[in-house]
Amino acid sequence: QSAVTIYGSFDGGVRYRTNVDAAGNNNVTMSSNGTFNSNRIGFRGVEDLGGGLNAHFTLETGFNTGTGALNNTANRLFERTASVGLGGSWGSVDLGRQYTNAFQTIASYDPFSYKYPGIADAVAATAGTRYDNDIKYVGKFGPVTARAEYALGEVAGNTSASSAKSIAGTFSSGAFTAGAAYTLREDATGTFDTDHWTVGGAAKFGPARVAVGYANQEADNATPVDAKTRWMWIGGNFALTPAFELTAAFYKTKLSGSTVGDKDNLMLGATYALSKRTNLYTLLDTQKYDGAARVAAAGNSRQRGIAVGVNHLF
Amino acid sequence: QSAVTIYGSFDGGVRYRTNVDAAGNNNVTMSSNGTFNSNRIGFRGVEDLGGGLNAHFTLETGFNTGTGALNNTANRLFERTASVGLGGSWGSVDLGRQYTNAFQTIASYDPFSYKYPGIADAVAATAGTRYDNDIKYVGKFGPVTARAEYALGEVAGNTSASSAKSIAGTFSSGAFTAGAAYTLREDATGTFDTDHWTVGGAAKFGPARVAVGYANQEADNATPVDAKTRWMWIGGNFALTPAFELTAAFYKTKLSGSTVGDKDNLMLGATYALSKRTNLYTLLDTQKYDGAARVAAAGNSRQRGIAVGVNHLF
Amino acid sequence: QSAVTIYGSFDGGVRYRTNVDAAGNNNVTMSSNGTFNSNRIGFRGVEDLGGGLNAHFTLETGFNTGTGALNNTANRLFERTASVGLGGSWGSVDLGRQYTNAFQTIASYDPFSYKYPGIADAVAATAGTRYDNDIKYVGKFGPVTARAEYALGEVAGNTSASSAKSIAGTFSSGAFTAGAAYTLREDATGTFDTDHWTVGGAAKFGPARVAVGYANQEADNATPVDAKTRWMWIGGNFALTPAFELTAAFYKTKLSGSTVGDKDNLMLGATYALSKRTNLYTLLDTQKYDGAARVAAAGNSRQRGIAVGVNHLF
Repeated sequence: QSAVTIYGSFDGGVRYRTNVDAAGNNNVTMSSNGTFNSNRIGFRGVEDLGGGLNAHFTLETGFNTGTGALNNTANRLFERTASVGLGGSWGSVDLGRQYTNAFQTIASYDPFSYKYPGIADAVAATAGTRYDNDIKYVGKFGPVTARAEYALGEVAGNTSASSAKSIAGTFSSGAFTAGAAYTLREDATGTFDTDHWTVGGAAKFGPARVAVGYANQEADNATPVDAKTRWMWIGGNFALTPAFELTAAFYKTKLSGSTVGDKDNLMLGATYALSKRTNLYTLLDTQKYDGAARVAAAGNSRQRGIAVGVNHLF
Repeated sequence: QSAVTIYGSFDGGVRYRTNVDAAGNNNVTMSSNGTFNSNRIGFRGVEDLGGGLNAHFTLETGFNTGTGALNNTANRLFERTASVGLGGSWGSVDLGRQYTNAFQTIASYDPFSYKYPGIADAVAATAGTRYDNDIKYVGKFGPVTARAEYALGEVAGNTSASSAKSIAGTFSSGAFTAGAAYTLREDATGTFDTDHWTVGGAAKFGPARVAVGYANQEADNATPVDAKTRWMWIGGNFALTPAFELTAAFYKTKLSGSTVGDKDNLMLGATYALSKRTNLYTLLDTQKYDGAARVAAAGNSRQRGIAVGVNHLF
Repeated sequence: QSAVTIYGSFDGGVRYRTNVDAAGNNNVTMSSNGTFNSNRIGFRGVEDLGGGLNAHFTLETGFNTGTGALNNTANRLFERTASVGLGGSWGSVDLGRQYTNAFQTIASYDPFSYKYPGIADAVAATAGTRYDNDIKYVGKFGPVTARAEYALGEVAGNTSASSAKSIAGTFSSGAFTAGAAYTLREDATGTFDTDHWTVGGAAKFGPARVAVGYANQEADNATPVDAKTRWMWIGGNFALTPAFELTAAFYKTKLSGSTVGDKDNLMLGATYALSKRTNLYTLLDTQKYDGAARVAAAGNSRQRGIAVGVNHLF
């Protein structure tokens, strides 16, 4: 038998949040699929096929800290990733459920690097975190990583309905990285499509890092005007000591076209590394909502939050 | 990567039981989440953080012998345990879904040591086997193990609703062990609370062991009188040879207050160890029900049962 | 702790298929529990008990390539296998959910060896792939493998209702193998039973192999005549090189008695082994349906399909 690697992340934290219902109540919760880092347990393996070729797979499960429940109610045991493929010097081709190009591109210029996935707005800006039935090519050419993907719609008699396609590129050299991605998705009937593009970059200066990003989405729909969403953010990290790091970021989400609204999200986080695998974390965050965006907080226009916990990688 | 340990227990047995429906029919079944020992497969790991500190986690799944199904229909992949925490000479603090203090306390004075969990009454006496969203401290001070826990209710605007809190202590010295636990739970509206306490002990005499226990629960409710439940038991183990052990126990459950009833449960079990990890087992058991307790057996006042099987630990 | 082995198979493929709905549309899909080989991830272990005796278990999960979902919606985490048992020179006895005798018998004379399980008809011919609550004996006596199983019905007051019992034998010597199995199943009320028997064999001639099989099922029902189903097939494999193998097979399914219909299924597949564990595969297949069998293709009388992909064992 082959060597299957078991890996994962388990996050134990508590979160306080204001205005969680229409009456303006607060709550304190532990149930979450990971406050700081998404909970996961995964199985992966690589087989050397000789001649520089390899076969590889990943199966990754998400779960809830407070209840042990699966991260979804749709029976998806390996909802986080289920992909198998071949790789070589030419790159890799993988099939299955996997991260989108936009998600993988934004990863390098989100100030929080997708930590606090349910709080920061970078995950929402990704044109979908993962696609089902996705065929993906990734190739590395010097400082450039190129990505192309096509997710099957599987609709009988209409191959474009429910499909998604995307191309993306990331340039990384020394302390500097920049990326861009374009995605086109079709709805289930093949009538309306959704365009999405993103661009951003990050740079390191000694113990500091600055990251900026932008994403733009236009969704066709039955109304005369499209639903437009724009996300923009800026933030930075500063390592006070090798173990103690501060991260601050401001995310803005703007809805326009068929619905109009605004969300501002300011986050200040600190992590203290007990080891390379175990971190203590804390977060202060505040959100302001206008217009249609207010529904996200049950009609309230402001929310504040605090999170504190421990994250363990295995 | 770290070393993740996979462990578990798999129980293959057959059970015959009388009076399983109102017509007084018998049945023979294999489907169960473990007749003698609860089925489980788990993943756990410990990271040494230096200075006596460690980070650790457990993710544990329960399953059905006869069907391979998860042990619950609520999507809870790691229903048995999902906890992460830090430990040191001062004890440990863990967050997540985990065993209650009362369960961990009674463990040392249940004659059957939680074997036959669906047949013996010790599990029912534990104020809940596990809590969601539980924060738990455990510390060992010489012969004493101290436990304190607080399970978040997560209800917006009412932090005590749905919460649970408990303190417990166990004293173990040589052949003797004793323990006690107190638990206070609130219902989902924060209106009614449930008090629970338990006390018990066990002692070894050469190849023999005797265990006695008591638990008392008072649940507030909308009726003028509380619903009271008392559990009491006595039992013993005798090792005829190092491999062959007999266990006998008598469990009594008394309902009083808003509902009145009685259950007597007499069990006689034998195990033969093929190794430290693999046991053959058999059980004879008989129950007598009175009053409201009779509903447990579809209105019948008596049940008898036989179980036989093999349990394998891995 | 013991050494638990993690093993599995992950199939990434795409399938094109004609006439998938009543309108005669085609589709292209990736979602499947394995096109060429059923997806699985399993955990198994064996403990040496001394004196030639061992204890062993298997827990096996199925999943969907395109979505990562469990292979069923009935909450069955280990739907593919959940069994535990003891083994020795006398054979083995296992309890739990496990493959049927008929399935294990036909395995040796299906030309496709249960590859393309959703396309080839050998799996349908097995009197049920697996049984819940199954007690199974398997013994090997020289060239003969003998199997006997009894699956509990678990119905209160009627031990034969929902039960299944079967005996089977396989003879293997050198290049030749032959097998037969008989199965009797009862419905949930114990009123109607279903008889099933199968016989077949295979022989190798250098790089070639020929396999033929037959299965016959008669299901009692409330109509004056039973529902009869007969499956018959013939096929062969030819290894053009050690890595490149062709397989062709013709499966015929005949419904008679209370419903009448016919299905012809012609399949031509090729595999190219990148290693012992990783294969590229492709398949051309065509089906013709008559009578009641036509419902299988939404009323159409013909379907064609192509599949291409990679299968990785781990």
